[in-house]
Amino acid sequence: MALIVHKYGGTSMGSTERIRNVARRVAKWHAAGHQIVVVPSAMSGETNRLLGLAREITDRPDPRELDMIASTGEQVAVGLLALALAAEGIPARSYAGWQVAVRTDSAYTKARIEGIDHKRVTRDLDAGKVVVITGFQGVDDEGHITTLGRGGSDTSAVAIAAALKAAECLIYTDVDGVYTTDPRIVPEARRLKVVSFEEMLEMASLGSKILQIRSVEFAGKYRVPTRVLSSLTDPLMPLDEEMRSGTLITFEEDEHMEQAVISGIAFNRDEAKITILGVPDRPGIAYQILGPIADANIDVDMIIQNQAVGGTTDFSFTVHRSEFKKALEVIDAEVKGKIGAREIGSDEKVCKVSAVGIGMRSHVGIASLMFRTLSEEGINIQMISTSEIKISVIIDDKYMELAVRALHKAFDLEHAG
Amino acid sequence: MALIVHKYGGTSMGSTERIRNVARRVAKWHAAGHQIVVVPSAMSGETNRLLGLAREITDRPDPRELDMIASTGEQVAVGLLALALAAEGIPARSYAGWQVAVRTDSAYTKARIEGIDHKRVTRDLDAGKVVVITGFQGVDDEGHITTLGRGGSDTSAVAIAAALKAAECLIYTDVDGVYTTDPRIVPEARRLKVVSFEEMLEMASLGSKILQIRSVEFAGKYRVPTRVLSSLTDPLMPLDEEMRSGTLITFEEDEHMEQAVISGIAFNRDEAKITILGVPDRPGIAYQILGPIADANIDVDMIIQNQAVGGTTDFSFTVHRSEFKKALEVIDAEVKGKIGAREIGSDEKVCKVSAVGIGMRSHVGIASLMFRTLSEEGINIQMISTSEIKISVIIDDKYMELAVRALHKAFDLEHAG
Repeated sequence: MALIVHKYGGTSMGSTERIRNVARRVAKWHAAGHQIVVVPSAMSGETNRLLGLAREITDRPDPRELDMIASTGEQVAVGLLALALAAEGIPARSYAGWQVAVRTDSAYTKARIEGIDHKRVTRDLDAGKVVVITGFQGVDDEGHITTLGRGGSDTSAVAIAAALKAAECLIYTDVDGVYTTDPRIVPEARRLKVVSFEEMLEMASLGSKILQIRSVEFAGKYRVPTRVLSSLTDPLMPLDEEMRSGTLITFEEDEHMEQAVISGIAFNRDEAKITILGVPDRPGIAYQILGPIADANIDVDMIIQNQAVGGTTDFSFTVHRSEFKKALEVIDAEVKGKIGAREIGSDEKVCKVSAVGIGMRSHVGIASLMFRTLSEEGINIQMISTSEIKISVIIDDKYMELAVRALHKAFDLEHAG
Repeated sequence: MALIVHKYGGTSMGSTERIRNVARRVAKWHAAGHQIVVVPSAMSGETNRLLGLAREITDRPDPRELDMIASTGEQVAVGLLALALAAEGIPARSYAGWQVAVRTDSAYTKARIEGIDHKRVTRDLDAGKVVVITGFQGVDDEGHITTLGRGGSDTSAVAIAAALKAAECLIYTDVDGVYTTDPRIVPEARRLKVVSFEEMLEMASLGSKILQIRSVEFAGKYRVPTRVLSSLTDPLMPLDEEMRSGTLITFEEDEHMEQAVISGIAFNRDEAKITILGVPDRPGIAYQILGPIADANIDVDMIIQNQAVGGTTDFSFTVHRSEFKKALEVIDAEVKGKIGAREIGSDEKVCKVSAVGIGMRSHVGIASLMFRTLSEEGINIQMISTSEIKISVIIDDKYMELAVRALHKAFDLEHAG
């Protein structure tokens, strides 16, 4: 008998029939003697519907009120799932984040979890109940409702698993695991049975979109064994088979038996690039450029600054395409004149493609194989950035699919390592 | 400057455009220097949509989970209204019932308000904010969300007005006041400028459906001046004109200047009647009959027991038509044999028509005029019940409109008293 946290995404909760399927699956786990906490997302489309109503009223919504509105989607979901569980004969009880309580800071629409009081949940579990907790939300010190941002239910699930010291956190979603790259682009893409925490972190931040990045950070910080698996399988499939499906995120390198040099090709298609040319080479210049960007609440992805030549250097960074115009305005208004830059260059249509793999640490030649492959396809590399376990390049948006396919083949990812 | 509570029904909140209209009206009151608390219902159709989802999952939903689900409609509404107020330049803050807190008992789906902690609301009002509070819901001692039952937002508004000692509680709805009867049945029906609390109590319970009965009880208990008025008027109409519109519910008889003998004809079309024939005439028999009905959570409306003849009597009561089958089952299974009744009679298609008026107290002949009128129309009276200020009859459902029209005319209600 173990304590297991299940998380179901919006698609898995997309209709009352699907909610009944979730209940059947949870009932199977409960019947096998496990203690189960379920964290469902809002029914698919619901959060967008709610935010759409808010947008019909005002362009500049107060984030506190947005959280009041958006948090209701998950509250409906937990209530419906508790009803469906009861209909399966399973005693169940739902809680909103504030009832647990899931305590967060007061950064409305992007709050961070600070702690989870789990007494109430533990009491219900010990009484044989399945506990259903809203994802995506919590409550601040003043008793205001907060939300964690898009995909926040993953983070809720992992944080709850950490607080309860759960044996495993199962993230049920509409894909059956983490792949070597997006199968819609490379049909030969292969599901990874195991992926290291560090790789998953890179994959998530690079746009694999399977798990919210903060949930992976949480899983790493508290070493929560986390498995990504499909909610579209038969809910009554044998339990041992289900426990071997999907992709397990591990923290032990020796579990990483099938490790190839490269685990996958990740990409992010919605990037935009801003380059500040002729930046004076003096201390504090990077902060002078990125400080105003951070103050405007714009997330920066890649940052590149090369060795100065002749007292000046060029400074580049990428942002999400939706924040490109705003970022450019900030640079024009608050940075350009102040630091005495020569010129601002920009490209709204770039993408990032990355090769990710723990094996890279001990292998030379990965970078050169990557660059050679892109060169053979005639793809110009605009920016390069590397970490211990990944190499990322910024290229023209239109070459993205080509680059991903070519790299997937070059690293022989269609065959198990 | 006064503290005023506004309540808006689901139709008034039916779209984002209508919510903006509500905000404009509230802004006008705020600009005139008043402190305003607003209690909106869920957007029209939303509560039904939510309960419909629950019904798709199970026929026998756990009431606690239903409240989790249904309470979200009002939470969305307060958030949207707070956004619309901010867009009008009015500082506003929304609260769910549990945040205020509106404390209730734990009778899920039909909880009763036990108290309201209004420190937080008073602090916001003193800071110049408009406070928007969810209707229909509260929180019990254990921190579970409760709802007050259909129309519960009226009760929330009046209870909040009582707790804050508001000068007036304005119930904005899609009718412009209380009428002598339903204008859809009698086009000559006339709006009452003033109605006594006692009359309103009878009108509400008899099916006028303008105000939830418990809200009128609350208004009476705490003597909250309550006005029913239209939300469909121009939101920017002059304030003094708006304050004279609608129907005021009063507690002082001398305010009741226009008082006729009868104020209105109320009716309730969805009744069903159960008669237990040959009931032994002994103490405790009424409890033996109605105890099991109450235990099954079935609301009973009219109860009639006549003088016993020959050691037995006949006992009749009416229930809402939707609970008729359940009530009949309870009587058959738990009552009939136990008390040794001879026979059970029932009629699923009856209605109740009532003449209501404080003036009735000091006037004889009201009952006889009522019975004569029905007799002249050939309508058979099945049951009669009277109180100080009303006479109710149960008649065949098909005669309802005819009876209402005839009585409205007989009591000359189309002309001001």
